[in-house]
Amino acid sequence: MGKVTDTPQWHTLEQAAQQVRRTHMRDIAADPGRGRTVASGAGLHLDWSRQRVSAEVLAGLLELARACGLHQRVEAMFTGERINATEKRAVLHTALRAAPGKHVIVDGVDCVALASATRAAMATFTDAVLSGAARGCTGAQFTDVVNIGIGGSDLGPVMVAEALRDQVTGLRPHFISNIDPTDAFETLRGLNPETTLVLIASKTFTTAETMANARLVRQWLVDGLPAASDVGQHLVALSTAVGLASDFGVLPERVFGFWDWVGGRYSVASAIGLSVMLAVGVDTFEELLAGMRAMDEHFLAAPSGENLPVLMGLLGVWNRDFLDIPTRAVLPYEQYLHRLPAYLQQLTMESNGKSVGLDGTPVTVQTAPILWGEPGTNGQHSFHQLIHQGTQAVACDVIVFARSRHDAAGQHLTLLANALAQAQVMALGRSATELAEAGVAADLIAHKVMPGNRPCTLISAPMLTAHALGALIALYEHATFVEGVIWGINSFDQWGVEYGKEVATALVPLLQGDRAAADVPEFTQASVELLRSMQ
Amino acid sequence: MGKVTDTPQWHTLEQAAQQVRRTHMRDIAADPGRGRTVASGAGLHLDWSRQRVSAEVLAGLLELARACGLHQRVEAMFTGERINATEKRAVLHTALRAAPGKHVIVDGVDCVALASATRAAMATFTDAVLSGAARGCTGAQFTDVVNIGIGGSDLGPVMVAEALRDQVTGLRPHFISNIDPTDAFETLRGLNPETTLVLIASKTFTTAETMANARLVRQWLVDGLPAASDVGQHLVALSTAVGLASDFGVLPERVFGFWDWVGGRYSVASAIGLSVMLAVGVDTFEELLAGMRAMDEHFLAAPSGENLPVLMGLLGVWNRDFLDIPTRAVLPYEQYLHRLPAYLQQLTMESNGKSVGLDGTPVTVQTAPILWGEPGTNGQHSFHQLIHQGTQAVACDVIVFARSRHDAAGQHLTLLANALAQAQVMALGRSATELAEAGVAADLIAHKVMPGNRPCTLISAPMLTAHALGALIALYEHATFVEGVIWGINSFDQWGVEYGKEVATALVPLLQGDRAAADVPEFTQASVELLRSMQ
Repeated sequence: MGKVTDTPQWHTLEQAAQQVRRTHMRDIAADPGRGRTVASGAGLHLDWSRQRVSAEVLAGLLELARACGLHQRVEAMFTGERINATEKRAVLHTALRAAPGKHVIVDGVDCVALASATRAAMATFTDAVLSGAARGCTGAQFTDVVNIGIGGSDLGPVMVAEALRDQVTGLRPHFISNIDPTDAFETLRGLNPETTLVLIASKTFTTAETMANARLVRQWLVDGLPAASDVGQHLVALSTAVGLASDFGVLPERVFGFWDWVGGRYSVASAIGLSVMLAVGVDTFEELLAGMRAMDEHFLAAPSGENLPVLMGLLGVWNRDFLDIPTRAVLPYEQYLHRLPAYLQQLTMESNGKSVGLDGTPVTVQTAPILWGEPGTNGQHSFHQLIHQGTQAVACDVIVFARSRHDAAGQHLTLLANALAQAQVMALGRSATELAEAGVAADLIAHKVMPGNRPCTLISAPMLTAHALGALIALYEHATFVEGVIWGINSFDQWGVEYGKEVATALVPLLQGDRAAADVPEFTQASVELLRSMQ
Repeated sequence: MGKVTDTPQWHTLEQAAQQVRRTHMRDIAADPGRGRTVASGAGLHLDWSRQRVSAEVLAGLLELARACGLHQRVEAMFTGERINATEKRAVLHTALRAAPGKHVIVDGVDCVALASATRAAMATFTDAVLSGAARGCTGAQFTDVVNIGIGGSDLGPVMVAEALRDQVTGLRPHFISNIDPTDAFETLRGLNPETTLVLIASKTFTTAETMANARLVRQWLVDGLPAASDVGQHLVALSTAVGLASDFGVLPERVFGFWDWVGGRYSVASAIGLSVMLAVGVDTFEELLAGMRAMDEHFLAAPSGENLPVLMGLLGVWNRDFLDIPTRAVLPYEQYLHRLPAYLQQLTMESNGKSVGLDGTPVTVQTAPILWGEPGTNGQHSFHQLIHQGTQAVACDVIVFARSRHDAAGQHLTLLANALAQAQVMALGRSATELAEAGVAADLIAHKVMPGNRPCTLISAPMLTAHALGALIALYEHATFVEGVIWGINSFDQWGVEYGKEVATALVPLLQGDRAAADVPEFTQASVELLRSMQ
């Protein structure tokens, strides 16, 4: 297939977009021909009634998906084809959480069986730690777990551990990611080496930030334990590099692996999730995976027009390419999800922040929007001013749960009322006529007008459980894939992150004072000198 | 003056922009005619050498500032004119931190003297708490302070308390903002009412979220203290509403006020900063204010071409309006600044997310971009892929400090190397020719090309001290004002946040099951029913 923008389906949508751009959402929303605008699956509800999407647009988007072979691409992913073409890898995060008894064979190896075996080993280890059978070198029971990782080895575990924070019945989880030594300093403050278990999460065991922090934390263990030789009882590696981990001092039976068919940003259900399992226990971790699995099965089975990830992905393409909206705000009305936007930034922007298609030629579309957000109601007192009255529309995902995990004096109901009110005002705005009718002073009317027409998807579930969280994660994973398929890009490589590391390595000796160390542009040289003058 | 887009200065810049859009940054950066591209003031350095700005563009931007009467507008702000025209208020956050002996008179009252008196009272109270002269009702010394506030009554104190976390020598600071009861539940967990001081931060003492949480926390105090009548010894109000605070149970001498010339998002140097003062002590808080004051004085005195806030604001306008870049990423290479982006979201997007000019007619420019970000190096393993290879350019602020507060084994040098490397790669990219010369396989070259041309400003200082933080806050405050002046908008109102609150209030009875309670659009009604079905 050539460029997606050359297809008749794309042209049809462009025609429809011209119509939509002339129509206010209040007229689209009132159209009885639009039919159902809520889809349900895996315990979640996706309500796109506040999107600028007519019946015609929805039909056109579903046609576009067909023209792009979406169904076949989904099948190819689930069955282990090497759809990560530039790295020649299968993409099988779904195998991590597949039902026992399923088989996905790549190169003669059953990936589901591999994942299950590792998860069983993780569970055995977790149970041993939580029961006190596995202890620190002084015989003290572990109370804290520190996960050292960055990117996909950090954002998923952090987000999930925060989301399930009131379900932490095991070790208290902590995370070190940044090479900035402040991160380790502040995290270790108040921890006791004797009762701390340290996980080093790096597929290759060579990630610069992670290994620097691992050395720093190992030294902290050595300094705080009776004998340096005891350090192995406090270390775990989440890695495929058993040899390097062993050289570092990790016992071979404490290395939990994963595989090249698990991308970092899709890895929270793999060994990378061990910090979560140690924190919430095996059963709750399994519930998280069950939620993911439920969404996987829905994604595979549900008709496109009722398929949550398909609809969400197509709406993403519609807002980005046809309505020209460059950013997307994720607004969880659930404080426990405060790190969801940061997690989704990696998932969506590292996956689909690309300019070159699978065919090696430049794309002719706009790809991933900037994703950002903070929990509601906090955002309402911060950036919602811009959402309602700025010059640039923002597409929003509003996430709500019918029940709170801690209701108090009806506050949760007020939270829900705020979420629905914001979604309504984004969609409909408030006109000068309405303001005049409400008696607003004439000289303030212009300042109070809100144009509306800000598209918004409402995602809801009964309560934030591990299952609902798993379904939510898988929803965004698959919606990201759907967008990538339409845009014709590889959502599973990340070539743009390599070169910066190389340049950084070359700059270190320059910053140490070796002026001849690297051939750098004038502005970099000037910055090095300025920074050195302040050291 | 009419519309800024009708001025000859704007037209000249549009001409220049056409030229710049055809020129790669590597050629602009190499132009010897560009002159100095680093400005310094108040201990900070602003390096705009990686911006797509030629000598001609800079001159044009400075002309534009003159045409917009920037200098006069700055004078008007500092001297207390009612530049917040839609609310008929002076804008005097600078008076909060003005040098003792300065006078700014509004309606016959000296705002500097007012601010100084309140700060003296805050300091007396802080010293009493920290020395143990003021104690909880059981005689126990206070160990923790909980600030209840939202928006400007939360984001500034949170950000500063996190930034100065290793300088906390007083009470441990905690923050409750979200009406989601989870926020209070998780914050109070592990705190002891007997040793906890609670600050209620709301100018009017009526903010819905804050008062709901205040009632919840007061109940927690009542339940945990020997007698309900003791609760007053644990409460403080940061408010102008002495009567309402007193009705709530706050002792009159424990109410610290501020004034209508202090906007919420500009209020961290006012009584709203009390949680910070209690955490870091009076001297460090004063150092923060001294840093702000140094930037205020620089902003007033330095010539435009060497003036940090003026340059930063003009570059903001250039990137948004002439290069059409819809978002701005703030990337602090300093883990302590991890909440700076959230703070700046309110500062910039609530201030300048407007579509109507001071004259009451629609603006003809694009106003505030979406601001977002996470600390480097974490972002590199997340969204930098999109920054380097996405279809949409992002303007970045990279913030670095020459020295770490906790250096460990050279990690800080690696952090700096990463910051400079990212800035360099954003600017220059990597061409297909360079990749071929480096021996990259032909079929991967297209996937590895980075176009560059991502503009970036490097902000640096010797170390993250309270003084440097204060200067940084004031830099962004004033740059935001400069942008607002050019865009011709009122940066100090926020009319867009009101209506959502009204709608939310009307929806509460509907969510409680009173179907006749409010006349709402069909999609809201459907969402209410769906949520109720899951309760």
